[in-house]
Amino acid sequence: MDYETILQGKYPAKLHARRVVDYIRSKIPGASGVLYLESRATKKIEDNDEDEPFRQRRYFYYLTGCPLADSYVVHDMDSSKTTLFIPPIDPEDVIWSGLPVSPEEAMQKYDVDEVKYTSDVNATLAHLGPEKSTVFAIPNQVSDQVTFLAFDNTNFSILKEAIEVTRVVKDEYELAMIAKANAISHKAHRAVLEKVKHAKNECELEAAFIGTCIAAGAPNQAYHSIVAAGRAAATLHYKHNNAPMAGKLNLLLDAGCEWDCYASDITRTFPINGKFTKESRAIYDIVLKMQLDCMAMIKEGVLWDDVHLLAHKIAIDGLLELGILKGDKDEILANRTSVAFFPHGLGHYLGMDVHDTGGNPNYADKDTMFRYLRVRGTLPAGSVVTVEPGIYFCNFIIEPFLKDPNHAKYIDKDVLDRYWDVGGVRIEDNVVVTKTGVENLTTAIKDPEEMERIIANS
Amino acid sequence: MDYETILQGKYPAKLHARRVVDYIRSKIPGASGVLYLESRATKKIEDNDEDEPFRQRRYFYYLTGCPLADSYVVHDMDSSKTTLFIPPIDPEDVIWSGLPVSPEEAMQKYDVDEVKYTSDVNATLAHLGPEKSTVFAIPNQVSDQVTFLAFDNTNFSILKEAIEVTRVVKDEYELAMIAKANAISHKAHRAVLEKVKHAKNECELEAAFIGTCIAAGAPNQAYHSIVAAGRAAATLHYKHNNAPMAGKLNLLLDAGCEWDCYASDITRTFPINGKFTKESRAIYDIVLKMQLDCMAMIKEGVLWDDVHLLAHKIAIDGLLELGILKGDKDEILANRTSVAFFPHGLGHYLGMDVHDTGGNPNYADKDTMFRYLRVRGTLPAGSVVTVEPGIYFCNFIIEPFLKDPNHAKYIDKDVLDRYWDVGGVRIEDNVVVTKTGVENLTTAIKDPEEMERIIANS
Repeated sequence: MDYETILQGKYPAKLHARRVVDYIRSKIPGASGVLYLESRATKKIEDNDEDEPFRQRRYFYYLTGCPLADSYVVHDMDSSKTTLFIPPIDPEDVIWSGLPVSPEEAMQKYDVDEVKYTSDVNATLAHLGPEKSTVFAIPNQVSDQVTFLAFDNTNFSILKEAIEVTRVVKDEYELAMIAKANAISHKAHRAVLEKVKHAKNECELEAAFIGTCIAAGAPNQAYHSIVAAGRAAATLHYKHNNAPMAGKLNLLLDAGCEWDCYASDITRTFPINGKFTKESRAIYDIVLKMQLDCMAMIKEGVLWDDVHLLAHKIAIDGLLELGILKGDKDEILANRTSVAFFPHGLGHYLGMDVHDTGGNPNYADKDTMFRYLRVRGTLPAGSVVTVEPGIYFCNFIIEPFLKDPNHAKYIDKDVLDRYWDVGGVRIEDNVVVTKTGVENLTTAIKDPEEMERIIANS
Repeated sequence: MDYETILQGKYPAKLHARRVVDYIRSKIPGASGVLYLESRATKKIEDNDEDEPFRQRRYFYYLTGCPLADSYVVHDMDSSKTTLFIPPIDPEDVIWSGLPVSPEEAMQKYDVDEVKYTSDVNATLAHLGPEKSTVFAIPNQVSDQVTFLAFDNTNFSILKEAIEVTRVVKDEYELAMIAKANAISHKAHRAVLEKVKHAKNECELEAAFIGTCIAAGAPNQAYHSIVAAGRAAATLHYKHNNAPMAGKLNLLLDAGCEWDCYASDITRTFPINGKFTKESRAIYDIVLKMQLDCMAMIKEGVLWDDVHLLAHKIAIDGLLELGILKGDKDEILANRTSVAFFPHGLGHYLGMDVHDTGGNPNYADKDTMFRYLRVRGTLPAGSVVTVEPGIYFCNFIIEPFLKDPNHAKYIDKDVLDRYWDVGGVRIEDNVVVTKTGVENLTTAIKDPEEMERIIANS
């Protein structure tokens, strides 16, 4: 995909509005009125006069492509006209911050039909009101000063759902955004690969990752990086990123930047000294097979639960072969013992949020194998999922299994004890689901020998 | 100052509590009871399952030195006993995030007398209540589940003020924290200096700054960096940091990291190609003289307003000599015309906040020369101020002066027109006020020829 060419066009806000309106009308036949959304307001840090780091509100961005704070959008469902409202010029602010985006510039930049100042929003709404009976909005995301008095009805229940469901299937432009974020994250992963042998502390590698992203024009990370050396990799949400590297085997790097509100989410695991130990390589090979076989299974309509199950089956086969697990593989699967080593879900939708909307997880599922799976059900073509199997040696997770005779009988403690220093291995790519398979947006190196070569030569 | 040795000790939380109690008793003679403070609560990003970036609440940190979220502290004013309450262990959370800090570890780390779990706070308060009549707390910073029912009185008015005033004078440990932040920022400023000639875009320099800080163990910036090439330096709050460098004269870099909640705040301006133009150097020399002469004037008891006034006088002398200003220097000063070129205040208190507490600014001051001065009044020994004079060529600021005959008569438009490309020059150091002068905590290079040499040789 030539994402750079695609990104020269405008973010397809009108297309998104049409799809959201279609969804609403599929639930409320003949629905008519206006969609109303607001961007994030600027906010001061508590007890401080500096602004909080700004993160655009995704619902608003989806219908505008506009990154500005303190803005509103009104979309007329019948005429399909989108009106964007941006903050008026504050002369005091111009002195300190320069000229803000003008309505003319905003018309050039964004896929909208008209641009006004936010001070005009009530007048505009009042004018639409008598004709358009319903205003669709999102609870707690309407400013106090905005009034819907001119409308017969307000509907605060369906717009959020409509956008969340619509966001699952990405268009070409959104895929290009995720591809661009992936390309920059690839560079940053490569920078860490080339530095890992020389770093004294995890923080130097986090610096290499974030620095590379900022230098490439991506100042925001999609999520807090995990830079975990040695056994820390077994802590799934490890975020300290400040431990010494000395004496540790592998580095797990789970990090991805954002490109204009779209996320990348990539994990790689590699040997710090440039050579996997026998145990590390054995685990790496199992996880890589889990990932490749799962990716081969994915296409439009596949049940994600089944793909996740396949990952567990491969993990069980591999751990049986190493002797960490023992006994009958079907019994082990049915008993959910492999959850001790692969406790999280295989992946999640990816888009404007790292854990994107529409996955319908069931965190109350009594079945521990599926409790943390963030997507349940079939994958439509055009959705983007992460495929991120892992095997971990985390004492907090494994010990309760060892104490439970129903699980302990399938685990060989003596063999297991040779693997604690492996820490954890996870390999994560971002793939587009297509009619026939997947398109992998992630190009970061994962071939174990190639990684070893790059580290050794660094 | 050997700050690394000092920082091996504990953050002096008990000393801070004593000083805060002394302040309260100076306002309310015989005051008795307990101080109650909370740390920041963890919070999710809106419409997202990732935590917001965490920033510790400064009032809580001042009395604990503890960076943990979701924690409380109770200080008994009479026995001087400090009890810290930290979050209890959540077994589910341990699986994902590892073991949290235990009460025993917290006792080792922090200057407190007892550590309990937050689940014990109401029982502890109830036990204290009948004896200690008043609980002092901060409005809107007490969790709903915490109850002060056992106390006769609650005082929500003085604790915030007491801490804000007490924070002005720093102890040795706090100065060491600011010195440490300065030392890391020095490295990062140096990295930018060595890269500026080769960068194609401002973002590469922001990357060099932030990357250097993270690699040195300082993951948080004290404020949003300003990385402004060419005329962008005239926009005082420039934060885009993403413009091309080509064809621009100078870089203004205003950036500083945080070290354990303590800020550094450093600005340097240097020639992108390694050689100041005649005009840039002339402006640089004026600003450097403003800074050095102002620093020489500072000592315990100096009126900050007077130091700020001195900066304006030197600016006027320099701009008269260059011919940008014309006429009588006393008239120009009285007329406030120099505000066109030096529109902000000379500096502010620095500590846990970049713009630290206790400055008593008067943003409604009718006198434009003092309106934005963030400290008004005399400086005590032990306070830390930034000294950050600047001269800017900002059309949004200067044009209204040119249109006003009362100002225009003092400005030579033809001479001025030769200076627009200088953009702006600011030089900012962080100094400790002493009985006899200042101790400068900022070591980043500002000698113009040394900067030129480093850039030329890079």
